[in-house]
Amino acid sequence: MPTVTFLPGYRKATVHQGDSLLEAAIAAGLHMNVVCGGQGKCGKCIVFLKSGTASFDLEKYRRFFADEEIARGACLACQTFVVNDLRVEVPEQSLVQQQKILVEFPGTEIPPDPAVRKYVLRLSPPSLDDTTPDVNRLLEGIERQGGPRPNRIYVPLDVLQYLPRALRQGNWNMTATVALVPGGYRLLHVDEGDSSNRLYGAAVDLGTTTIVVYIWSLADGRIAATASNYNRQISCGEDILSRVTFARKGGLARLQQLAAESINDALCAAADAAGIDLEDIFEVMIAGNTVMTHLLLGIDPAYMIAEPYTPAVRRMLSTAAGRIGIATHRNAGVYTFPAVSNFIGGDIIADILASGMAEREEVSLLVDIGTNFEAVLGNSDWMLSCAGAAGPALEGGEVLFGMRANPGAIERVRINGDTLTPTFTTINGAGPQGICGSGLIDLLAELIRACVIDRNGNINMEIENPRVRRGRYCPEFVVAWKEETAVAKDIVITENDIKNLIMSKAAILGACMTLLDAAGLDHGEIATVYFSGAFGNYINKENAITIGLIPEVGLDQVKNIGNGAITGANIALINRQSRKLLDALAQRITYIELNAEPSFMDRYTSSCFLPHTDLTLFPKVQQTLEACRMRRG
Amino acid sequence: MPTVTFLPGYRKATVHQGDSLLEAAIAAGLHMNVVCGGQGKCGKCIVFLKSGTASFDLEKYRRFFADEEIARGACLACQTFVVNDLRVEVPEQSLVQQQKILVEFPGTEIPPDPAVRKYVLRLSPPSLDDTTPDVNRLLEGIERQGGPRPNRIYVPLDVLQYLPRALRQGNWNMTATVALVPGGYRLLHVDEGDSSNRLYGAAVDLGTTTIVVYIWSLADGRIAATASNYNRQISCGEDILSRVTFARKGGLARLQQLAAESINDALCAAADAAGIDLEDIFEVMIAGNTVMTHLLLGIDPAYMIAEPYTPAVRRMLSTAAGRIGIATHRNAGVYTFPAVSNFIGGDIIADILASGMAEREEVSLLVDIGTNFEAVLGNSDWMLSCAGAAGPALEGGEVLFGMRANPGAIERVRINGDTLTPTFTTINGAGPQGICGSGLIDLLAELIRACVIDRNGNINMEIENPRVRRGRYCPEFVVAWKEETAVAKDIVITENDIKNLIMSKAAILGACMTLLDAAGLDHGEIATVYFSGAFGNYINKENAITIGLIPEVGLDQVKNIGNGAITGANIALINRQSRKLLDALAQRITYIELNAEPSFMDRYTSSCFLPHTDLTLFPKVQQTLEACRMRRG
Repeated sequence: MPTVTFLPGYRKATVHQGDSLLEAAIAAGLHMNVVCGGQGKCGKCIVFLKSGTASFDLEKYRRFFADEEIARGACLACQTFVVNDLRVEVPEQSLVQQQKILVEFPGTEIPPDPAVRKYVLRLSPPSLDDTTPDVNRLLEGIERQGGPRPNRIYVPLDVLQYLPRALRQGNWNMTATVALVPGGYRLLHVDEGDSSNRLYGAAVDLGTTTIVVYIWSLADGRIAATASNYNRQISCGEDILSRVTFARKGGLARLQQLAAESINDALCAAADAAGIDLEDIFEVMIAGNTVMTHLLLGIDPAYMIAEPYTPAVRRMLSTAAGRIGIATHRNAGVYTFPAVSNFIGGDIIADILASGMAEREEVSLLVDIGTNFEAVLGNSDWMLSCAGAAGPALEGGEVLFGMRANPGAIERVRINGDTLTPTFTTINGAGPQGICGSGLIDLLAELIRACVIDRNGNINMEIENPRVRRGRYCPEFVVAWKEETAVAKDIVITENDIKNLIMSKAAILGACMTLLDAAGLDHGEIATVYFSGAFGNYINKENAITIGLIPEVGLDQVKNIGNGAITGANIALINRQSRKLLDALAQRITYIELNAEPSFMDRYTSSCFLPHTDLTLFPKVQQTLEACRMRRG
Repeated sequence: MPTVTFLPGYRKATVHQGDSLLEAAIAAGLHMNVVCGGQGKCGKCIVFLKSGTASFDLEKYRRFFADEEIARGACLACQTFVVNDLRVEVPEQSLVQQQKILVEFPGTEIPPDPAVRKYVLRLSPPSLDDTTPDVNRLLEGIERQGGPRPNRIYVPLDVLQYLPRALRQGNWNMTATVALVPGGYRLLHVDEGDSSNRLYGAAVDLGTTTIVVYIWSLADGRIAATASNYNRQISCGEDILSRVTFARKGGLARLQQLAAESINDALCAAADAAGIDLEDIFEVMIAGNTVMTHLLLGIDPAYMIAEPYTPAVRRMLSTAAGRIGIATHRNAGVYTFPAVSNFIGGDIIADILASGMAEREEVSLLVDIGTNFEAVLGNSDWMLSCAGAAGPALEGGEVLFGMRANPGAIERVRINGDTLTPTFTTINGAGPQGICGSGLIDLLAELIRACVIDRNGNINMEIENPRVRRGRYCPEFVVAWKEETAVAKDIVITENDIKNLIMSKAAILGACMTLLDAAGLDHGEIATVYFSGAFGNYINKENAITIGLIPEVGLDQVKNIGNGAITGANIALINRQSRKLLDALAQRITYIELNAEPSFMDRYTSSCFLPHTDLTLFPKVQQTLEACRMRRG
């Protein structure tokens, strides 16, 4: 079988003839950038053939490459197939790099009240006068320490099996770990001596792309470690749909395993850094969208993607870690957040928990933006939700120089209204390679303020400035000259890019408008807009309103809750009362199916302007734009 | 490696040099008779060497064989070791045969109220207007059929995993199987169509020697099938102590497996006979003694046999069948009866349940006799219990011609007071091979009535009758002449045998007396004596009182509950209310440790007479014996 060697790291993979270079890269342990899931559409998985023979259709992918690149052997890994031994160079930007994954936990007022407790026991050994069975002796000891009554505690078989020996090896000085579970209590573990300071729980944000993990010391309610990494399922498809398709084609078990491995990777990294033994993690709270939750639990998600789009389960589930391959203590309870619908999943319930909006009388709007977006409107009495596809534009897909929030991404942009010269910052200060979502929003807002584009997103080609020019296919604006970049090309934003961005943001604004309609509210009645997710955390609020991403509210009314999924998971992990209420919360959220809502298409169409067709809905933006236009003359 | 071929069935086993013939027989699938657990003490595992070389110590075991037998190659399988290829003949009586294992279920007034129910559901399929998740749809359907509320039902992961496909394959016409479990309900299974008539439960008497299984149709509360077989653990030791020793030496997992296999064998036999699929058995109720219960669950029983004799657990346990290798539906709940102590196990709790004594105000005495005996005295207010070793005499061990209740065993004996000619019946009417427990009790009672023996058990050698003679080692009485038997030997009972039998019965009577003492009661205050177990079922009540096996009460006050363990298991299986009370019942039974009770030794010594040293305690027996003595002159 042919061997493919990847430079510069000399990673090797032995593969079958006809396998794609993407498959070879995965086998070699490389995480390629495959936004389109390996369909040859995104053009992100560029590699350079150095030696050997491969088969590919050069014409088909020419549009991704300059002639000079083609001459150097450029091709797309997903569309290039191994014929014999190959040496392939992988440029850094083709690899998934450590993105800015949100791991910060905003200070919370949630009092620690975990569902798992340890009881330190000094038991009297049995004697001829006291032949109380081992289990009773232990459970009575727990009760004496303020724990639950013995007949309320279920003792799993595996604990029973090791208990007699353990008690004697530990000389009857033991620590018992007991969890509150639905319907009672469960004895998770018994070990020797006093291990009360080693009681940990893990909160997990199981994202389609990234995994974030917090390990908490439940003994004292502090964060012990955090870590994040990619969801290894990416190798089976970038987006949710392609994962469900993979699952349907017999890949469910593989996806289940990859989900567990991804969580384990992050858990290991965090635990190692903090010197924690994974065996001391006794509870895991997981927030993921509905499909991710199904896949983690090995439940077929196939019926979610075909009419009538029914999930297998929405309510909170619990299972033992050992049963789904989570590398904590095998008896640790793994809890998954409940969902509202296929598209309003556990991650959004976690967002709501993190925002606190469900406990307040005032009306809040919560928006979580990724390839898909979710929006929730409501208060402590009622809640409406909807979701839709925003398209990949806001995450850097379908945008020529769009990229994820990796080092080298332009994340902040200002444009001098006179010279049209942009000033920008990149993530980690690296040489610019492309533009990530927050940079794109800045660009759009700045371009409209500078009157480079109109409210339809058309570039004004009458402007005489070298940055405004006609590109290969359409008009474009040069954000960075070749010499300033790390990719040896001018970084531009094209009119096509702008149209894609407008369609993305219109879907979001249209959805928010539809929710307000359904609630019979005016956008002025929104007290707070919460942005959740990595995206929301980095965008410029004013610019987001300027382009009409969300309804116009005061800037001080817009709050970023950051990674709401992990924050919600943290809260539900450390506070058992919060967790108890989640099913009820999920049940009281009404889901509005936008495709079945006739008003949505109108709302969307009206939103396909910067910021909206009806400027009276954006009075402050209207003032700003008029001021800009007057200044430009 | 040498091969051992066993005749007449030509079963073969390839073994290591130095392995015993007993090990070879087990490997060949033969169930040898090894009362002593393979210690060379019982002399029951006789085989005849036909060809090949084996090593053994002839002198050591000569006492078991006549010269003629030694000449024919007789040896004990457990004490004979393979040197090279062997052909070995196994006489039928050396094999464990189908004993009279009690499987009859006395008619009971217990109303069927099982903890497992099936709900037949005709669900409406999901539509765009109703995208209720699969699980909710199912659980709501169960509630509409009168089942528990959805949030009270735990759905195990494996059901979740197959549910989406199953619902669609079944076109939404399904049957859900739900069990009441501690703390709530559990969805055990979902299948297509209406399977409501296929709902079974199994009650199991997990004995040290034998397994009895009842399969109940829980849908209509009738017995569907019964079966019994040997406990395969016998190959690791005949008695409890040798099993615990085997477990301590690393054999715990093997014993666990053998226990499960033994139960599975019986379940299969019963299910096959009735055309039942084991997958349709959704609950299993197991009554076993404390060690058997530990072994079945894979819990180390080692600490029960060394001071201070502490069991790991006494309370009722539940686990999923799949976790301990029980071949029913893998999610079926397996429940084990609680215990009072190491020696008053779940089998005795089942006896008590079967007797109904715990619900009545009048005082009952329950006696369960085997190699060990257990006795329980009490009523609905209080209960005392004790246990001890009766020795194997009453089961045919330590008695020259003693045997188990196999075909050919003399089970009833009468002796003509003048001619001393016995008349007897054998099990299955086969030619006599030996005497089983009920026959031995008859013999003792008849011999004392015939004045052949005195109250100490000494044979009156002055009697001139060919049946009364001096044997090889001591006086003996000929029960059957060589010509009448199937073993080509005179079947006798020796004075030694009689002394062993008296010591056995004295342990039991002494224990009953000790319980009465502890309760401050006279034996006249006992309303009912219950015999439990195979032994009690076959013995002659009057003879049992005549020899002083139990305190003297009216014959109509003695009741046989038969196999109380299986009856109790049946009751707890079909009636969930009965099951609920078991832990409380076990907790209110006081255990008296006879070895720690100074009065017991006195009571035992006083009982080492026929029937007792103090004949005023046995007034009717006294009258009978005096009448006999007067008749004999």
